[in-house]
Amino acid sequence: MPTERIILGIDPGTNIMGFGLIAVKGSKLSLMALDVIKLDHLETQPLKLKNIFEKVLALIDHFHPDEVALEAPFFGKNVQSMLKLGRAQGVAMAAALYRDIPIFEYSPRKVKQSITGRGNASKEQVSAMLNRMFTIAEQPKYFDATDAVAVACCHYFQRNTGNTGKSYSGWASFLSNNPERLG
Amino acid sequence: MPTERIILGIDPGTNIMGFGLIAVKGSKLSLMALDVIKLDHLETQPLKLKNIFEKVLALIDHFHPDEVALEAPFFGKNVQSMLKLGRAQGVAMAAALYRDIPIFEYSPRKVKQSITGRGNASKEQVSAMLNRMFTIAEQPKYFDATDAVAVACCHYFQRNTGNTGKSYSGWASFLSNNPERLG
Repeated sequence: MPTERIILGIDPGTNIMGFGLIAVKGSKLSLMALDVIKLDHLETQPLKLKNIFEKVLALIDHFHPDEVALEAPFFGKNVQSMLKLGRAQGVAMAAALYRDIPIFEYSPRKVKQSITGRGNASKEQVSAMLNRMFTIAEQPKYFDATDAVAVACCHYFQRNTGNTGKSYSGWASFLSNNPERLG
Repeated sequence: MPTERIILGIDPGTNIMGFGLIAVKGSKLSLMALDVIKLDHLETQPLKLKNIFEKVLALIDHFHPDEVALEAPFFGKNVQSMLKLGRAQGVAMAAALYRDIPIFEYSPRKVKQSITGRGNASKEQVSAMLNRMFTIAEQPKYFDATDAVAVACCHYFQRNTGNTGKSYSGWASFLSNNPERLG
């Protein structure tokens, strides 16, 4: 069955940015890639931003995603870190927009809810659920990578349930209704 | 005398973004363009961000600036507006970084100080001083445009004084030392 849709998930950060790509084939989801872009070795903010832009553009040009989903930052931070995070996000968004790829954004709570059924799930619980969904050969060192896969999956569930008009009830109930998607 | 350097100044905003271009020829500064990009008619944030990216890229490809100077946001805002502003800035920065143009950032206070000699000058005072420096045929409707020219000039003064190791004392003293620059 041909791939119908590819979703690039991004968990933006100023020191480390996670990304994950999932492919949708019929009722199956498969994991194409997950990794992080490390930025902490770069000395200046412009260098970090340039790196984010170029890397996201390279991912897009390599994998040709149809949609980009981003995890929105948690609003507890102070204004200065919010500005930095906004810039990192903006640069990642710019790469997608430059290639005419629609972008979508989900709150951390929404992402956790969609994957585990609980908005206050831990990163470990999200990661464990993704391990059930996909065969992840090597456990990534950073949760940023699995978080990025999680937001890509969240977008998939969101749009799918949105399209059919069904109320959204998370991955747990989705699994029980669609056990074949685990394969 | 050939143009030695072109500076693109940007005053980023989420509803209106000002830009101004100045050309440096010997000891003369001349104004190449100033205007705003209006974004308030665009319904979604991604559309606004896409518009900013494309417009800044178009400005760069048309005017070939050597450097981009941005006005940093005032930190009094709340986290949510800071994030939005950060994104708008990030997108503008991405366009410059994509074309390998170095970016520089100045606080609103620094910009005012460099143009008027006073860090707490009003927008009207900054605008009036720019009118002394340049022949601005038509007064721009928005201060965002003159603010963008101001940050470009601020960058010019900053680098020039930085390069020669002179202590920096603003445009007013610069004028009295270099009256020929007014021509």
